[in-house]
Amino acid sequence: MRTAAVVGTGLVGTSVALALTLRGVTVFLDDADTTAARTAEALGAGSLAVPPEPVDLAVLAVPPAHVGVVLAQCQERNLARCYTDVASVKARPYRDVLLAGGDASRYVGGHPLAGGERSGPLAARAELFEGRLWVLTPADRAERPALNSVLELVSLCGATPVIMDAEAHDRAVALTSHAPHLLSSLMAARLAEAEGDHVRISGQGLRDVTRIAAGEPALWGEILEANAEAVADVLQACAADLEHTIAALRALHGADGARRARAAADLDDALRRGNRGAGRVPRKHGSGPVEYTVVPVAVPDQPGALARLFATVSEAGVNIEDVSIEHAVDQPSGLVELTVERSSTEEVRRLLDAHGWTLQDRAPLTGHR
Amino acid sequence: MRTAAVVGTGLVGTSVALALTLRGVTVFLDDADTTAARTAEALGAGSLAVPPEPVDLAVLAVPPAHVGVVLAQCQERNLARCYTDVASVKARPYRDVLLAGGDASRYVGGHPLAGGERSGPLAARAELFEGRLWVLTPADRAERPALNSVLELVSLCGATPVIMDAEAHDRAVALTSHAPHLLSSLMAARLAEAEGDHVRISGQGLRDVTRIAAGEPALWGEILEANAEAVADVLQACAADLEHTIAALRALHGADGARRARAAADLDDALRRGNRGAGRVPRKHGSGPVEYTVVPVAVPDQPGALARLFATVSEAGVNIEDVSIEHAVDQPSGLVELTVERSSTEEVRRLLDAHGWTLQDRAPLTGHR
Repeated sequence: MRTAAVVGTGLVGTSVALALTLRGVTVFLDDADTTAARTAEALGAGSLAVPPEPVDLAVLAVPPAHVGVVLAQCQERNLARCYTDVASVKARPYRDVLLAGGDASRYVGGHPLAGGERSGPLAARAELFEGRLWVLTPADRAERPALNSVLELVSLCGATPVIMDAEAHDRAVALTSHAPHLLSSLMAARLAEAEGDHVRISGQGLRDVTRIAAGEPALWGEILEANAEAVADVLQACAADLEHTIAALRALHGADGARRARAAADLDDALRRGNRGAGRVPRKHGSGPVEYTVVPVAVPDQPGALARLFATVSEAGVNIEDVSIEHAVDQPSGLVELTVERSSTEEVRRLLDAHGWTLQDRAPLTGHR
Repeated sequence: MRTAAVVGTGLVGTSVALALTLRGVTVFLDDADTTAARTAEALGAGSLAVPPEPVDLAVLAVPPAHVGVVLAQCQERNLARCYTDVASVKARPYRDVLLAGGDASRYVGGHPLAGGERSGPLAARAELFEGRLWVLTPADRAERPALNSVLELVSLCGATPVIMDAEAHDRAVALTSHAPHLLSSLMAARLAEAEGDHVRISGQGLRDVTRIAAGEPALWGEILEANAEAVADVLQACAADLEHTIAALRALHGADGARRARAAADLDDALRRGNRGAGRVPRKHGSGPVEYTVVPVAVPDQPGALARLFATVSEAGVNIEDVSIEHAVDQPSGLVELTVERSSTEEVRRLLDAHGWTLQDRAPLTGHR
């Protein structure tokens, strides 16, 4: 890819333009909002000139509802050889492309999973997509060169491509983005009219649950409108669970003992299913699951011995994640099992050994647990 | 306060003990779980000895359902002159205190608004409560010395006391903590059986909304049980909004134009109420609202002028939050208004002046906006 056009110089468009410019691609910028376009240009994202010949790829970074019409217009003026967009819904924009008479053979829909609190070109950065996923939804009639051109774009932006059907993508984001957004809004809405004293009594949990409710209503209205049925399906399942949970809460202090027990079990089940689901949410890029190992140490039954053991481990700058303490009835020392990050195990063992602690193998101690 | 007892050496109890020890208070620890108690002792949180005489204050850091019975037991053995607890619900534990025959004149309920992802003494730290709120719910029959003793505890832990009725506290936390927890669980539960490919397509929003759903189900079951009616009231209001929102989503693509418009307005209203509510959530301690000012600069109509202006501001390490660009029709330069943090205004103005930019007053330019 030598040349590209970015139509729409908001956060995502300008970030794409910055990333491509950084990789040596000549980028042409276009936005009906001249302040946004000039700002992107001044940030070094590209040029406001009209490309002298069709560019290799045009990235349409416009709201979902505009993708179809803007693509048709761009193809009309022969802006690029291939086209993609960055809208966070994919089925409806593709239908719009067909309706607007666009050439679907040279278009592959895309959705980079990246964004930010702030919008607009001033919030843009070339690294916005690094390590992120970028979903591509090539339709059957999309031709190979178009797909490869968009794959190159994703690669130049440092993201990982994921190819999906547009409908599967839309059901996925209904579940992982759009329904969570509305639930966050509904919870936050409860605070809008609450007493000030009540809202004051809150912590990180409330901040986390309601953070995305601060998103731009006009933008989110467009996104939700473009994926309304899939979002409604997810929320309907939430509503059924919610009714069930409310009924359980109401029954917890009722007179009927059997019903009370059932209500407690229902509540517990809701919390446990939530636990399982939360465990499936991908962690932040680069923060994979931490693995732990257990280091067993013999600790004499003397005052201060455990404190000295902790101090030795702290000296290594290692966090003790968990501890278990067991006494062998007929021995002058107990067994302490320290749980530490696997990557620190060797250092902890070395340090404990150097300080004269007796490291134990786990095998001879089975039966204690 | 010279002496204190901490009954229950989990995260909160051990953190209280560490904070008090750090301030020179002699702390006695007690926990039925001897590993937890010995771990807290080894961390320097206090002594496992039995206090030789009644301590000034005993802090009961046990689950909500145990507060009443544990208080009565402690008073039976004359552990302390005054008592408090740290349970996150307050009305029911107080009723339990009365039921268990506890002396309510020497007890003031408390709830520090602090916690953490991890539980247990190993996660404890003396600074856990610093800058946090700590709700106190003295009942009518609580005597002044008990209240003052607990106020001293809050102060020694570096927290800010808030005095409330137990019932008002419980309604507040139903709104700001317990209902959000269940909504987070319900959303996360939708992910439990979802396709792996679908869950993979997710970002920070989903992580935030579902984070608290990872909380310990047994602990949360107890909390919710102790505040069931108030939580059900909040969730009922959410459920009504949710039904309304689902109906709006379903109607967005219907045949009836008037109904479609109403549905779009309903959806917009839900998002805007969410926006307002999210704006009322207190920010993290120490991160008050940032104030901005506008710096107007005359920028010549030359290629690269805006880029040079941005570069000058970047040189000061200052973020441009917003920009507007206007052209006066009959003048050789345009007006650029930079929005920057108020605290940086003087530095930006000085730097721009030093680089030869013409700063403008806003007054003569009214009429342009």
